[in-house]
Amino acid sequence: MKAFWWDGEKLLLLDQRKLPEKEEWVALGDHVQTALAIKDMLVRGAPAIGCVAAYGFLMGVRKGEESEKVYEILKNTRPTAYNLFYALDRMMKAHKEGDDLENTAKAIEEEDYQANRRMGEIGNKLIPENARIITHCNTGALATAGFGTALGVIRQAHYSGKSIFVWVDETRPYLQGSRLTAWELLKEGIPHRIITDSTVGFLMKKGLVDCVIVGADRITKRGDVANKIGTYTLSVLAKVHGIPFYVVAPSSTIDPKLERGEDIPIEERSEDEIKVFRNCQFAPKESPALHLAFDITPAENITAIITEKGIWKPV
Amino acid sequence: MKAFWWDGEKLLLLDQRKLPEKEEWVALGDHVQTALAIKDMLVRGAPAIGCVAAYGFLMGVRKGEESEKVYEILKNTRPTAYNLFYALDRMMKAHKEGDDLENTAKAIEEEDYQANRRMGEIGNKLIPENARIITHCNTGALATAGFGTALGVIRQAHYSGKSIFVWVDETRPYLQGSRLTAWELLKEGIPHRIITDSTVGFLMKKGLVDCVIVGADRITKRGDVANKIGTYTLSVLAKVHGIPFYVVAPSSTIDPKLERGEDIPIEERSEDEIKVFRNCQFAPKESPALHLAFDITPAENITAIITEKGIWKPV
Repeated sequence: MKAFWWDGEKLLLLDQRKLPEKEEWVALGDHVQTALAIKDMLVRGAPAIGCVAAYGFLMGVRKGEESEKVYEILKNTRPTAYNLFYALDRMMKAHKEGDDLENTAKAIEEEDYQANRRMGEIGNKLIPENARIITHCNTGALATAGFGTALGVIRQAHYSGKSIFVWVDETRPYLQGSRLTAWELLKEGIPHRIITDSTVGFLMKKGLVDCVIVGADRITKRGDVANKIGTYTLSVLAKVHGIPFYVVAPSSTIDPKLERGEDIPIEERSEDEIKVFRNCQFAPKESPALHLAFDITPAENITAIITEKGIWKPV
Repeated sequence: MKAFWWDGEKLLLLDQRKLPEKEEWVALGDHVQTALAIKDMLVRGAPAIGCVAAYGFLMGVRKGEESEKVYEILKNTRPTAYNLFYALDRMMKAHKEGDDLENTAKAIEEEDYQANRRMGEIGNKLIPENARIITHCNTGALATAGFGTALGVIRQAHYSGKSIFVWVDETRPYLQGSRLTAWELLKEGIPHRIITDSTVGFLMKKGLVDCVIVGADRITKRGDVANKIGTYTLSVLAKVHGIPFYVVAPSSTIDPKLERGEDIPIEERSEDEIKVFRNCQFAPKESPALHLAFDITPAENITAIITEKGIWKPV
């Protein structure tokens, strides 16, 4: 399962807004189309955004656009995920050094896939037999170059023959959990059950959860983590109930310039993404909403961060 | 604003499933129609369910049905809210003692309304000027005989001239927050903003919340509280962040037979209420879901319980 394919000229992208009902692919032909697809969340998931932006940069420069302009357009799509900036900086460096841009974009994709496989192996060691795992948002093949970060660890635990069960929290407002993660787990035949986000605490209280595994959009030097809104709440609940809380992300998620989580910019998205789903409006039009797309989990709430380089216990 | 009207023969009921888009009223003519309306959540909110069931009992007995049968049909609609059993037991007692059933049902309704007004006065003393309040689910006029429990306190704080602000968590899956509470606050002109349920923790961490006020569906003798799923999660977050957590409910919510929250039956509802909203399906059909409608908050997590009789600090 993959969320995007590079065909040598264009980038084919699965429109994730339409999953799980429809599997519709769109063809992106330049950096502007790519930027819009990122902004409108046809593609989401920090590592996938990074890969897609790299191909967008390649297409823009190939079209003869000024590289700085291409870089800026792609950079100003979403502010929180670090992998976007990692990928664009690497493409810009390759461009300045005269390296082949197509090979660089392909390398970014391939390295992300290999990092996922490696994180799967490393993370699987932390998953006990018969584990009942909570995961948040979607961190699977759809969110990466393939396989997944947190969901990659779950996938690997399943492949290794462990009997596991996954509580999929629906992850409002975009419903990455019930729409995307459940869809991936179903395709893998991994036992799971969807719950609303606020059910998590009660399940922990009842002793029905053995660990929490989530991805990350940006990680600071001290190990503070920006991730999908709701991650901080999960981390507090896990800590109070004595449940391990793992973050799984490639090292391209780590921002070497930032020390503290408070310094990570948090994207605020349209309030209609909370008040409307497809053609269903479920809140009064006149009622304002606040849609923070991410939150910050301090290193103190994290049992371990798993990257392709190993297990990091930040505190 | 009222969710039901007794016209002397029939009960007119606002179909809350269709709010806020449509204000549609249905007329209930007997106990069976009333039981179905409770089960299907045309009416919800523990005190409102109690009042409506009382009128259902009246209509059933008036039609010449056997009182025990009427009682059982209405009782077996929803298992968690205690007010339902309180109201039905009182109607049955009145019936056996030859009291006028219409007057008894009206008294249950009027007492609930007066209890709400009184709780509003008492609870308002706990609300500071400029309070930023989180509330969960809908506990307003729509959930009671009028005015509201937790939302009644908020209403009273507003009426008393305090400048307050309400964070309305949407309360998945039925969206009582974004559909009903926002609608009531809008009509009152009380400043508010809708958030997803999982946003709460991060807002508390950022210092944007001064107190939490929720209702209750059943309260045990020691002060454990059954309430809308997500309440327990809110109570843990409030405790960790040092934020007062108040429960507001009439004394008809207290079950004198139960000591511990673990003994309260928790209703499990259809998984389609999580996977589908109106005509929008947002999870794979084959993925199972778990829909617990309520959870239990232990007395230890509660700062105070406000009833019409005063402020109770259970622990």
